[in-house]
Amino acid sequence: MTQYFTEDNSVEAVNTRIGPQADARLATIMASLVKHLHAFAKEVELTQAEWEVGIDFLTRTGQICSGERQEFILLSDTLGLSMLVDAINNRRPEGATENTVFGPFHVDGAPVRQMGDTISLDGKGEPCRYSGHVRNLDGKPIEGARIDVWCDNADGFYDVQQPGIQPKWNNRGVFVTGADGTYDFIGIKPVSYPIPDDGPVGKMLAALGRHPYRPAHMHYLVTAPGYQKLVTHTFVGGDPYLESDTVFGVKKSLVAPFVRTPDSDIAWQSTFDFVLVREG
Amino acid sequence: MTQYFTEDNSVEAVNTRIGPQADARLATIMASLVKHLHAFAKEVELTQAEWEVGIDFLTRTGQICSGERQEFILLSDTLGLSMLVDAINNRRPEGATENTVFGPFHVDGAPVRQMGDTISLDGKGEPCRYSGHVRNLDGKPIEGARIDVWCDNADGFYDVQQPGIQPKWNNRGVFVTGADGTYDFIGIKPVSYPIPDDGPVGKMLAALGRHPYRPAHMHYLVTAPGYQKLVTHTFVGGDPYLESDTVFGVKKSLVAPFVRTPDSDIAWQSTFDFVLVREG
Ligand SMILES: [Fe+2]
Ligand SMILES: [Fe+2]
Repeated sequence: MTQYFTEDNSVEAVNTRIGPQADARLATIMASLVKHLHAFAKEVELTQAEWEVGIDFLTRTGQICSGERQEFILLSDTLGLSMLVDAINNRRPEGATENTVFGPFHVDGAPVRQMGDTISLDGKGEPCRYSGHVRNLDGKPIEGARIDVWCDNADGFYDVQQPGIQPKWNNRGVFVTGADGTYDFIGIKPVSYPIPDDGPVGKMLAALGRHPYRPAHMHYLVTAPGYQKLVTHTFVGGDPYLESDTVFGVKKSLVAPFVRTPDSDIAWQSTFDFVLVREG
Repeated sequence: MTQYFTEDNSVEAVNTRIGPQADARLATIMASLVKHLHAFAKEVELTQAEWEVGIDFLTRTGQICSGERQEFILLSDTLGLSMLVDAINNRRPEGATENTVFGPFHVDGAPVRQMGDTISLDGKGEPCRYSGHVRNLDGKPIEGARIDVWCDNADGFYDVQQPGIQPKWNNRGVFVTGADGTYDFIGIKPVSYPIPDDGPVGKMLAALGRHPYRPAHMHYLVTAPGYQKLVTHTFVGGDPYLESDTVFGVKKSLVAPFVRTPDSDIAWQSTFDFVLVREG
Protein backbone atom coordinates (compact mmCIF):
# COMPACT_ATOMS: atom_id res chain seq x y z
CA MET A 1 0.00 0.00 0.00
CA THR A 2 1.62 3.22 -1.20
CA GLN A 3 1.76 6.09 1.24
CA TYR A 4 1.21 9.52 -0.21
CA PHE A 5 3.76 12.19 0.68
CA THR A 6 3.25 13.92 4.01
CA GLU A 7 5.44 16.22 6.07
CA ASP A 8 6.11 13.35 8.48
CA ASN A 9 6.90 10.58 6.01
CA SER A 10 8.58 12.78 3.38
CA VAL A 11 11.90 10.93 3.36
CA GLU A 12 10.34 7.49 3.09
CA ALA A 13 7.91 8.68 0.40
CA VAL A 14 10.80 9.82 -1.78
CA ASN A 15 13.27 7.04 -1.10
CA THR A 16 10.86 4.14 -1.63
CA ARG A 17 10.59 5.30 -5.23
CA ILE A 18 14.16 4.26 -5.98
CA GLY A 19 13.86 1.25 -8.26
CA PRO A 20 15.67 -2.08 -7.96
CA GLN A 21 17.57 -1.37 -11.18
CA ALA A 22 19.34 1.64 -9.63
CA ASP A 23 23.04 1.22 -8.91
CA ALA A 24 23.33 0.27 -5.23
CA ARG A 25 25.88 2.94 -4.37
CA LEU A 26 23.87 5.65 -6.16
CA ALA A 27 20.77 4.52 -4.28
CA THR A 28 22.64 4.75 -0.97
CA ILE A 29 23.97 8.21 -1.74
CA MET A 30 20.67 9.63 -2.97
CA ALA A 31 18.68 8.17 -0.07
CA SER A 32 21.11 9.74 2.39
CA LEU A 33 21.06 13.05 0.52
CA VAL A 34 17.25 13.17 0.59
CA LYS A 35 17.21 12.29 4.29
CA HIS A 36 19.61 15.08 5.23
CA LEU A 37 18.12 17.61 2.80
CA HIS A 38 14.67 17.07 4.28
CA ALA A 39 16.05 17.19 7.82
CA PHE A 40 17.57 20.57 6.99
CA ALA A 41 14.30 21.97 5.58
CA LYS A 42 12.39 20.68 8.60
CA GLU A 43 14.88 21.94 11.15
CA VAL A 44 14.80 25.52 9.88
CA GLU A 45 11.18 25.33 8.68
CA LEU A 46 12.30 26.75 5.36
CA THR A 47 9.83 29.27 3.97
CA GLN A 48 8.70 29.40 0.37
CA ALA A 49 10.54 32.71 -0.09
CA GLU A 50 13.76 31.26 1.35
CA TRP A 51 13.43 28.25 -0.94
CA GLU A 52 13.16 30.67 -3.86
CA VAL A 53 16.33 32.44 -2.73
CA GLY A 54 18.06 29.05 -2.65
CA ILE A 55 16.86 28.09 -6.14
CA ASP A 56 18.02 31.46 -7.47
CA PHE A 57 21.41 31.14 -5.72
CA LEU A 58 22.06 27.67 -7.16
CA THR A 59 20.97 28.83 -10.61
CA ARG A 60 23.33 31.82 -10.56
CA THR A 61 26.11 29.61 -9.23
CA GLY A 62 25.65 27.25 -12.18
CA GLN A 63 25.37 30.00 -14.72
CA ILE A 64 28.65 31.71 -13.79
CA CYS A 65 30.58 28.45 -14.28
CA SER A 66 32.73 28.29 -17.40
CA GLY A 67 35.85 26.58 -18.65
CA GLU A 68 37.86 28.95 -16.44
CA ARG A 69 35.58 29.19 -13.44
CA GLN A 70 33.99 26.57 -11.19
CA GLU A 71 31.71 28.34 -8.74
CA PHE A 72 30.23 25.10 -7.34
CA ILE A 73 33.73 24.02 -6.27
CA LEU A 74 34.12 27.40 -4.57
CA LEU A 75 30.79 26.79 -2.84
CA SER A 76 31.89 23.34 -1.71
CA ASP A 77 35.22 24.77 -0.54
CA THR A 78 33.72 27.62 1.46
CA LEU A 79 31.15 25.35 3.13
CA GLY A 80 33.94 23.02 4.24
CA LEU A 81 32.64 20.15 2.09
CA SER A 82 35.77 19.88 -0.04
CA MET A 83 38.01 19.60 3.02
CA LEU A 84 35.63 17.11 4.60
CA VAL A 85 35.69 14.86 1.52
CA ASP A 86 39.48 15.22 1.49
CA ALA A 87 39.66 14.24 5.16
CA ILE A 88 37.33 11.25 4.78
CA ASN A 89 39.34 9.89 1.88
CA ASN A 90 42.82 10.52 3.27
CA ARG A 91 42.89 9.21 6.83
CA ARG A 92 46.53 8.52 7.58
CA PRO A 93 48.51 7.08 10.45
CA GLU A 94 50.18 9.32 13.00
CA GLY A 95 53.44 10.69 11.64
CA ALA A 96 52.36 10.76 7.99
CA THR A 97 52.06 14.11 6.27
CA GLU A 98 48.43 15.22 6.17
CA ASN A 99 46.51 15.95 3.00
CA THR A 100 44.71 19.16 2.18
CA VAL A 101 42.64 20.42 -0.76
CA PHE A 102 44.09 20.20 -4.25
CA GLY A 103 42.69 23.56 -5.35
CA PRO A 104 41.86 24.62 -8.90
CA PHE A 105 45.28 25.90 -9.99
CA HIS A 106 47.37 22.79 -10.57
CA VAL A 107 48.57 22.31 -14.15
CA ASP A 108 49.84 19.00 -15.47
CA GLY A 109 53.16 18.97 -17.26
CA ALA A 110 55.20 21.54 -15.35
CA PRO A 111 58.90 21.38 -16.25
CA VAL A 112 61.08 18.93 -14.34
CA ARG A 113 63.90 20.96 -12.77
CA GLN A 114 67.18 20.13 -11.05
CA MET A 115 67.47 20.35 -7.29
CA GLY A 116 68.53 23.87 -6.37
CA ASP A 117 66.84 25.46 -9.39
CA THR A 118 64.41 28.33 -9.08
CA ILE A 119 60.76 28.25 -10.05
CA SER A 120 60.35 32.05 -9.87
CA LEU A 121 60.47 33.26 -13.46
CA ASP A 122 59.06 36.77 -13.11
CA GLY A 123 61.64 38.00 -10.61
CA LYS A 124 58.91 39.29 -8.31
CA GLY A 125 58.53 38.49 -4.63
CA GLU A 126 60.76 37.59 -1.72
CA PRO A 127 63.07 34.67 -2.56
CA CYS A 128 62.78 31.61 -0.38
CA ARG A 129 64.76 28.36 -0.30
CA TYR A 130 62.58 25.28 0.18
CA SER A 131 64.22 22.10 1.36
CA GLY A 132 63.69 18.92 3.30
CA HIS A 133 63.30 15.18 2.95
CA VAL A 134 60.79 12.76 1.54
CA ARG A 135 60.64 9.79 3.86
CA ASN A 136 58.42 6.84 4.66
CA LEU A 137 56.88 6.13 8.05
CA ASP A 138 60.01 4.23 9.08
CA GLY A 139 62.11 7.34 8.48
CA LYS A 140 63.78 5.88 5.39
CA PRO A 141 64.44 8.29 2.50
CA ILE A 142 62.32 7.72 -0.61
CA GLU A 143 64.20 7.78 -3.90
CA GLY A 144 62.41 8.82 -7.07
CA ALA A 145 59.68 10.81 -5.31
CA ARG A 146 58.19 13.37 -7.67
CA ILE A 147 57.53 16.70 -5.97
CA ASP A 148 55.21 18.88 -8.06
CA VAL A 149 55.04 22.41 -6.56
CA TRP A 150 53.03 25.52 -7.40
CA CYS A 151 52.18 28.81 -5.75
CA ASP A 152 50.90 32.29 -6.49
CA ASN A 153 53.19 35.17 -7.40
CA ALA A 154 53.90 38.27 -5.34
CA ASP A 155 50.63 39.81 -6.51
CA GLY A 156 48.58 36.82 -5.32
CA PHE A 157 47.86 35.32 -8.75
CA TYR A 158 48.77 31.95 -10.23
CA ASP A 159 50.34 32.08 -13.69
CA VAL A 160 47.19 30.56 -15.22
CA GLN A 161 45.16 33.45 -13.86
CA GLN A 162 47.36 35.93 -15.72
CA PRO A 163 48.25 34.46 -19.11
CA GLY A 164 50.38 36.96 -21.05
CA ILE A 165 51.26 38.80 -17.84
CA GLN A 166 53.19 36.10 -16.00
CA PRO A 167 55.64 33.81 -17.80
CA LYS A 168 54.27 30.31 -18.44
CA TRP A 169 55.17 27.93 -15.57
CA ASN A 170 55.98 30.85 -13.26
CA ASN A 171 56.26 29.52 -9.70
CA ARG A 172 55.79 25.92 -10.80
CA GLY A 173 58.11 22.98 -11.17
CA VAL A 174 58.68 19.29 -10.63
CA PHE A 175 61.63 17.94 -8.63
CA VAL A 176 62.63 14.28 -8.34
CA THR A 177 64.46 13.02 -5.28
CA GLY A 178 67.68 11.04 -5.40
CA ALA A 179 68.79 8.21 -3.12
CA ASP A 180 69.02 10.47 -0.06
CA GLY A 181 65.37 11.58 -0.44
CA THR A 182 66.23 15.26 -0.11
CA TYR A 183 64.75 18.14 -2.06
CA ASP A 184 65.89 21.71 -2.46
CA PHE A 185 64.62 24.51 -4.67
CA ILE A 186 64.27 28.28 -4.81
CA GLY A 187 60.88 29.93 -5.04
CA ILE A 188 59.25 32.92 -3.44
CA LYS A 189 57.50 33.31 -0.13
CA PRO A 190 53.87 33.00 -1.28
CA VAL A 191 51.28 35.61 -0.36
CA SER A 192 47.71 35.30 0.86
CA TYR A 193 45.05 35.79 -1.83
CA PRO A 194 41.26 35.96 -2.09
CA ILE A 195 39.34 33.27 -3.91
CA PRO A 196 37.27 34.74 -6.78
CA ASP A 197 34.64 36.69 -4.86
CA ASP A 198 32.74 38.61 -7.53
CA GLY A 199 30.12 35.85 -7.95
CA PRO A 200 27.36 34.24 -5.87
CA VAL A 201 29.83 32.58 -3.47
CA GLY A 202 31.57 35.88 -2.78
CA LYS A 203 28.19 37.46 -2.05
CA MET A 204 27.37 34.55 0.27
CA LEU A 205 30.64 35.02 2.17
CA ALA A 206 29.99 38.75 2.52
CA ALA A 207 26.45 38.10 3.78
CA LEU A 208 27.90 35.69 6.38
CA GLY A 209 30.48 38.23 7.52
CA ARG A 210 33.34 36.13 6.14
CA HIS A 211 36.37 37.26 4.15
CA PRO A 212 37.43 35.44 0.95
CA TYR A 213 41.15 35.03 1.80
CA ARG A 214 43.40 32.03 1.91
CA PRO A 215 46.57 32.25 4.01
CA ALA A 216 49.81 32.12 1.99
CA HIS A 217 50.74 28.56 1.00
CA MET A 218 52.90 26.47 -1.29
CA HIS A 219 51.11 23.60 -3.03
CA TYR A 220 52.67 20.15 -3.18
CA LEU A 221 51.70 17.00 -5.04
CA VAL A 222 54.13 14.31 -3.92
CA THR A 223 54.04 10.89 -5.57
CA ALA A 224 56.36 7.93 -5.40
CA PRO A 225 55.96 4.37 -6.68
CA GLY A 226 54.37 2.16 -4.03
CA TYR A 227 53.23 5.12 -1.91
CA GLN A 228 49.90 6.89 -1.50
CA LYS A 229 49.60 10.16 -3.38
CA LEU A 230 50.06 13.17 -1.11
CA VAL A 231 48.18 16.37 -1.99
CA THR A 232 49.04 19.09 0.43
CA HIS A 233 50.26 22.63 1.10
CA THR A 234 52.74 24.13 3.46
CA PHE A 235 51.40 27.29 5.06
CA VAL A 236 53.49 30.33 5.86
CA GLY A 237 53.72 30.47 9.63
CA GLY A 238 52.47 33.78 11.01
CA ASP A 239 50.11 34.54 8.12
CA PRO A 240 47.18 36.63 9.41
CA TYR A 241 44.65 34.34 7.71
CA LEU A 242 46.05 31.08 9.10
CA GLU A 243 43.13 30.72 11.50
CA SER A 244 40.47 31.83 9.04
CA ASP A 245 41.34 30.17 5.71
CA THR A 246 38.14 30.68 3.74
CA VAL A 247 38.36 27.08 2.42
CA PHE A 248 39.42 25.53 5.75
CA GLY A 249 42.59 23.99 4.28
CA VAL A 250 44.93 24.68 7.20
CA LYS A 251 46.10 21.87 9.45
CA LYS A 252 48.43 22.51 12.34
CA SER A 253 50.98 20.02 11.02
CA LEU A 254 51.15 21.86 7.69
CA VAL A 255 52.14 25.24 9.10
CA ALA A 256 55.80 25.49 8.16
CA PRO A 257 58.56 27.70 9.51
CA PHE A 258 59.55 30.51 7.17
CA VAL A 259 62.80 31.86 8.60
CA ARG A 260 64.70 34.98 7.58
CA THR A 261 68.29 34.32 6.44
CA PRO A 262 70.01 37.70 6.74
CA ASP A 263 73.38 36.50 5.47
CA SER A 264 72.03 35.07 2.22
CA ASP A 265 70.68 36.66 -0.97
CA ILE A 266 67.81 34.22 -0.54
CA ALA A 267 65.86 36.17 2.09
CA TRP A 268 63.86 33.24 3.49
CA GLN A 269 64.32 29.58 4.24
CA SER A 270 61.55 27.02 4.77
CA THR A 271 62.27 23.43 5.64
CA PHE A 272 59.61 20.75 5.64
CA ASP A 273 59.74 16.97 5.52
CA PHE A 274 57.16 14.88 3.70
CA VAL A 275 56.28 11.49 5.14
CA LEU A 276 54.50 9.13 2.74
CA VAL A 277 52.41 6.08 3.50
CA ARG A 278 52.78 2.83 1.58
CA GLU A 279 49.89 1.89 -0.71
CA GLY A 280 47.50 -0.90 0.19
CA MET B 1 41.78 29.56 20.59
CA THR B 2 40.81 28.68 17.02
CA GLN B 3 40.42 25.05 16.14
CA TYR B 4 41.66 24.04 12.74
CA PHE B 5 39.30 21.98 10.59
CA THR B 6 39.25 18.25 11.26
CA GLU B 7 36.92 15.48 10.15
CA ASP B 8 35.42 15.40 13.63
CA ASN B 9 34.90 19.10 14.20
CA SER B 10 34.09 20.02 10.60
CA VAL B 11 30.67 21.52 11.30
CA GLU B 12 31.86 23.64 14.19
CA ALA B 13 34.93 24.78 12.24
CA VAL B 14 32.75 26.12 9.44
CA ASN B 15 29.90 27.55 11.47
CA THR B 16 32.02 29.45 13.98
CA ARG B 17 33.20 31.58 11.05
CA ILE B 18 29.81 33.18 10.63
CA GLY B 19 30.26 36.78 11.72
CA PRO B 20 28.08 38.75 14.14
CA GLN B 21 27.03 41.06 11.31
CA ALA B 22 25.32 38.22 9.43
CA ASP B 23 21.53 38.32 9.35
CA ALA B 24 20.32 36.04 12.16
CA ARG B 25 17.96 34.02 10.00
CA LEU B 26 20.59 33.56 7.28
CA ALA B 27 23.06 32.40 9.93
CA THR B 28 20.54 29.87 11.25
CA ILE B 29 19.80 28.52 7.79
CA MET B 30 23.43 28.25 6.70
CA ALA B 31 24.57 26.65 9.96
CA SER B 32 21.84 24.03 9.62
CA LEU B 33 22.66 23.48 5.95
CA VAL B 34 26.35 22.93 6.74
CA LYS B 35 25.47 20.55 9.58
CA HIS B 36 23.25 18.39 7.40
CA LEU B 37 25.51 18.58 4.34
CA HIS B 38 28.48 17.36 6.39
CA ALA B 39 26.35 14.66 8.03
CA PHE B 40 25.44 13.42 4.54
CA ALA B 41 29.08 13.31 3.36
CA LYS B 42 30.13 11.52 6.54
CA GLU B 43 27.28 9.03 6.47
CA VAL B 44 28.03 7.83 2.94
CA GLU B 45 31.80 8.49 3.19
CA LEU B 46 31.58 10.35 -0.08
CA THR B 47 34.58 9.65 -2.32
CA GLN B 48 36.49 12.28 -4.25
CA ALA B 49 35.18 10.82 -7.53
CA GLU B 50 31.58 10.94 -6.26
CA TRP B 51 32.07 14.53 -5.14
CA GLU B 52 33.25 15.32 -8.68
CA VAL B 53 30.11 13.71 -10.12
CA GLY B 54 28.05 15.90 -7.79
CA ILE B 55 29.87 19.10 -8.78
CA ASP B 56 29.42 18.22 -12.45
CA PHE B 57 25.72 17.42 -11.94
CA LEU B 58 25.03 20.73 -10.20
CA THR B 59 26.97 22.61 -12.86
CA ARG B 60 25.01 21.01 -15.71
CA THR B 61 21.78 21.62 -13.82
CA GLY B 62 22.62 25.32 -13.57
CA GLN B 63 23.76 25.62 -17.14
CA ILE B 64 20.56 24.21 -18.67
CA CYS B 65 18.45 26.80 -16.81
CA SER B 66 17.03 29.58 -18.97
CA GLY B 67 14.08 31.96 -19.04
CA GLU B 68 11.91 29.01 -20.09
CA ARG B 69 13.47 26.24 -18.02
CA GLN B 70 14.24 25.88 -14.32
CA GLU B 71 16.10 22.62 -13.79
CA PHE B 72 16.86 23.33 -10.11
CA ILE B 73 13.12 23.54 -9.43
CA LEU B 74 12.72 20.18 -11.19
CA LEU B 75 15.51 18.84 -8.96
CA SER B 76 13.81 20.17 -5.84
CA ASP B 77 10.48 18.76 -7.03
CA THR B 78 11.80 15.29 -7.79
CA LEU B 79 13.66 15.07 -4.47
CA GLY B 80 10.46 15.94 -2.61
CA LEU B 81 11.89 19.21 -1.31
CA SER B 82 9.30 21.40 -3.03
CA MET B 83 6.42 19.42 -1.53
CA LEU B 84 8.12 19.43 1.86
CA VAL B 85 8.48 23.21 1.85
CA ASP B 86 4.87 23.47 0.71
CA ALA B 87 3.76 21.19 3.55
CA ILE B 88 5.78 23.03 6.20
CA ASN B 89 4.33 26.36 5.15
CA ASN B 90 0.72 25.29 4.68
CA ARG B 91 -0.27 23.32 7.75
CA ARG B 92 -4.05 23.57 7.91
CA PRO B 93 -6.76 22.45 10.28
CA GLU B 94 -8.72 19.28 9.60
CA GLY B 95 -11.42 19.88 7.04
CA ALA B 96 -9.55 22.59 5.10
CA THR B 97 -8.50 21.85 1.54
CA GLU B 98 -4.85 20.84 1.42
CA ASN B 99 -2.19 22.65 -0.58
CA THR B 100 0.07 21.14 -3.17
CA VAL B 101 2.88 22.43 -5.40
CA PHE B 102 2.25 25.48 -7.56
CA GLY B 103 4.24 24.14 -10.51
CA PRO B 104 5.94 26.19 -13.21
CA PHE B 105 3.01 26.65 -15.61
CA HIS B 106 0.77 29.24 -13.95
CA VAL B 107 0.38 32.48 -15.90
CA ASP B 108 -0.90 35.68 -14.34
CA GLY B 109 -3.70 37.50 -16.08
CA ALA B 110 -5.83 34.67 -17.44
CA PRO B 111 -9.24 35.91 -18.67
CA VAL B 112 -12.05 36.16 -16.13
CA ARG B 113 -14.91 34.03 -17.45
CA GLN B 114 -18.56 33.56 -16.55
CA MET B 115 -19.68 30.51 -14.61
CA GLY B 116 -20.54 27.77 -17.07
CA ASP B 117 -18.03 28.97 -19.69
CA THR B 118 -15.47 26.69 -21.23
CA ILE B 119 -11.70 27.06 -20.91
CA SER B 120 -10.94 24.56 -23.69
CA LEU B 121 -10.13 26.67 -26.74
CA ASP B 122 -8.47 24.08 -28.99
CA GLY B 123 -11.42 21.69 -29.08
CA LYS B 124 -9.17 18.75 -28.16
CA GLY B 125 -9.70 16.33 -25.34
CA GLU B 126 -12.61 14.84 -23.44
CA PRO B 127 -14.97 17.55 -22.14
CA CYS B 128 -15.49 17.66 -18.41
CA ARG B 129 -17.77 19.81 -16.26
CA TYR B 130 -16.11 21.04 -13.06
CA SER B 131 -18.31 22.26 -10.26
CA GLY B 132 -18.57 22.61 -6.52
CA HIS B 133 -18.52 25.12 -3.70
CA VAL B 134 -16.02 27.40 -2.05
CA ARG B 135 -16.72 27.40 1.65
CA ASN B 136 -15.07 28.29 4.92
CA LEU B 137 -14.41 25.88 7.78
CA ASP B 138 -17.87 26.61 9.18
CA GLY B 139 -19.42 25.42 5.92
CA LYS B 140 -20.52 28.93 4.92
CA PRO B 141 -20.24 29.82 1.20
CA ILE B 142 -17.56 32.36 0.34
CA GLU B 143 -18.62 35.11 -2.03
CA GLY B 144 -16.05 36.77 -4.28
CA ALA B 145 -13.60 33.85 -4.22
CA ARG B 146 -11.35 33.95 -7.27
CA ILE B 147 -10.74 30.50 -8.77
CA ASP B 148 -7.81 30.56 -11.17
CA VAL B 149 -7.60 27.22 -13.02
CA TRP B 150 -5.15 25.75 -15.51
CA CYS B 151 -4.33 22.34 -16.97
CA ASP B 152 -2.55 20.65 -19.85
CA ASN B 153 -4.27 19.88 -23.13
CA ALA B 154 -5.09 16.47 -24.54
CA ASP B 155 -1.49 16.07 -25.72
CA GLY B 156 -0.07 16.72 -22.24
CA PHE B 157 1.22 20.25 -22.86
CA TYR B 158 0.31 23.57 -21.27
CA ASP B 159 -0.41 26.37 -23.71
CA VAL B 160 2.82 28.16 -22.73
CA GLN B 161 4.80 25.09 -23.76
CA GLN B 162 3.33 25.29 -27.27
CA PRO B 163 3.07 28.95 -28.27
CA GLY B 164 1.72 29.21 -31.79
CA ILE B 165 0.35 25.68 -31.61
CA GLN B 166 -2.22 26.10 -28.83
CA PRO B 167 -4.42 29.18 -28.61
CA LYS B 168 -3.34 31.64 -25.93
CA TRP B 169 -5.10 30.94 -22.60
CA ASN B 170 -6.08 27.45 -23.74
CA ASN B 171 -7.31 25.50 -20.71
CA ARG B 172 -7.00 28.50 -18.40
CA GLY B 173 -9.47 30.85 -16.82
CA VAL B 174 -10.52 32.74 -13.73
CA PHE B 175 -13.98 32.34 -12.18
CA VAL B 176 -15.39 34.45 -9.34
CA THR B 177 -18.01 33.04 -6.99
CA GLY B 178 -21.30 34.73 -6.23
CA ALA B 179 -23.19 34.78 -2.93
CA ASP B 180 -23.86 31.02 -3.02
CA GLY B 181 -20.13 30.22 -3.29
CA THR B 182 -20.63 27.81 -6.18
CA TYR B 183 -18.47 27.43 -9.25
CA ASP B 184 -19.10 25.69 -12.52
CA PHE B 185 -17.06 25.57 -15.72
CA ILE B 186 -16.30 23.34 -18.68
CA GLY B 187 -12.79 22.12 -19.37
CA ILE B 188 -11.26 18.85 -20.42
CA LYS B 189 -10.25 15.82 -18.43
CA PRO B 190 -6.52 16.48 -18.06
CA VAL B 191 -3.94 13.86 -19.00
CA SER B 192 -0.78 12.67 -17.26
CA TYR B 193 2.45 14.18 -18.61
CA PRO B 194 6.19 13.86 -18.07
CA ILE B 195 8.18 16.70 -16.56
CA PRO B 196 10.97 17.83 -18.93
CA ASP B 197 13.30 14.83 -18.76
CA ASP B 198 15.95 15.56 -21.39
CA GLY B 199 18.28 17.26 -18.88
CA PRO B 200 20.32 16.30 -15.81
CA VAL B 201 17.21 15.71 -13.67
CA GLY B 202 15.73 13.35 -16.26
CA LYS B 203 19.01 11.44 -16.31
CA MET B 204 18.97 11.27 -12.52
CA LEU B 205 15.43 9.89 -12.50
CA ALA B 206 16.40 7.26 -15.08
CA ALA B 207 19.46 6.26 -13.04
CA LEU B 208 17.23 5.87 -9.99
CA GLY B 209 14.75 3.71 -11.89
CA ARG B 210 12.06 6.40 -11.66
CA HIS B 211 9.68 7.61 -14.38
CA PRO B 212 9.18 11.34 -15.04
CA TYR B 213 5.33 11.36 -15.05
CA ARG B 214 2.79 13.35 -13.12
CA PRO B 215 -0.72 11.94 -12.79
CA ALA B 216 -3.41 13.97 -14.56
CA HIS B 217 -4.49 17.02 -12.56
CA MET B 218 -6.29 20.33 -12.72
CA HIS B 219 -4.46 23.25 -11.06
CA TYR B 220 -6.30 25.67 -8.79
CA LEU B 221 -5.28 28.92 -7.17
CA VAL B 222 -8.17 29.97 -4.94
CA THR B 223 -8.09 33.34 -3.19
CA ALA B 224 -10.68 35.29 -1.26
CA PRO B 225 -10.38 38.42 0.89
CA GLY B 226 -9.66 37.48 4.49
CA TYR B 227 -8.73 33.89 3.65
CA GLN B 228 -5.41 32.08 3.22
CA LYS B 229 -4.38 31.54 -0.37
CA LEU B 230 -5.01 27.97 -1.53
CA VAL B 231 -2.65 26.51 -4.14
CA THR B 232 -3.73 23.05 -5.08
CA HIS B 233 -4.67 20.51 -7.74
CA THR B 234 -7.45 18.02 -8.11
CA PHE B 235 -6.18 14.70 -9.38
CA VAL B 236 -8.06 12.46 -11.76
CA GLY B 237 -9.11 9.42 -9.73
CA GLY B 238 -7.85 6.19 -11.27
CA ASP B 239 -4.83 7.73 -13.01
CA PRO B 240 -2.06 5.10 -13.28
CA TYR B 241 0.54 7.54 -11.90
CA LEU B 242 -1.48 8.59 -8.81
CA GLU B 243 0.76 6.58 -6.51
CA SER B 244 4.01 7.54 -8.21
CA ASP B 245 3.73 11.26 -9.04
CA THR B 246 7.33 12.15 -9.86
CA VAL B 247 7.04 15.39 -7.84
CA PHE B 248 5.09 13.83 -4.92
CA GLY B 249 2.19 16.29 -5.29
CA VAL B 250 -0.66 13.85 -4.64
CA LYS B 251 -2.61 13.93 -1.39
CA LYS B 252 -5.44 11.55 -0.75
CA SER B 253 -7.89 14.38 -0.11
CA LEU B 254 -7.11 15.90 -3.53
CA VAL B 255 -8.00 12.84 -5.59
CA ALA B 256 -11.32 13.88 -7.14
CA PRO B 257 -14.05 11.80 -8.69
CA PHE B 258 -14.18 12.04 -12.48
CA VAL B 259 -17.53 10.47 -13.41
CA ARG B 260 -18.80 9.60 -16.89
CA THR B 261 -22.06 11.32 -17.82
CA PRO B 262 -23.44 9.24 -20.70
CA ASP B 263 -26.54 11.36 -21.23
CA SER B 264 -24.66 14.62 -21.69
CA ASP B 265 -22.47 15.97 -24.50
CA ILE B 266 -20.04 16.80 -21.68
CA ALA B 267 -18.55 13.31 -21.24
CA TRP B 268 -17.24 13.75 -17.69
CA GLN B 269 -18.25 15.45 -14.48
CA SER B 270 -15.96 16.28 -11.57
CA THR B 271 -17.24 17.86 -8.40
CA PHE B 272 -14.93 19.18 -5.70
CA ASP B 273 -15.45 21.60 -2.83
CA PHE B 274 -12.77 24.00 -1.67
CA VAL B 275 -12.62 24.84 2.02
CA LEU B 276 -10.58 27.93 2.87
CA VAL B 277 -9.06 28.96 6.19
CA ARG B 278 -9.32 32.48 7.57
CA GLU B 279 -6.12 34.52 7.64
CA GLY B 280 -4.32 35.22 10.89
FE1 LIG C 1 46.39 27.96 -3.66
FE1 LIG D 1 0.73 20.56 -13.82
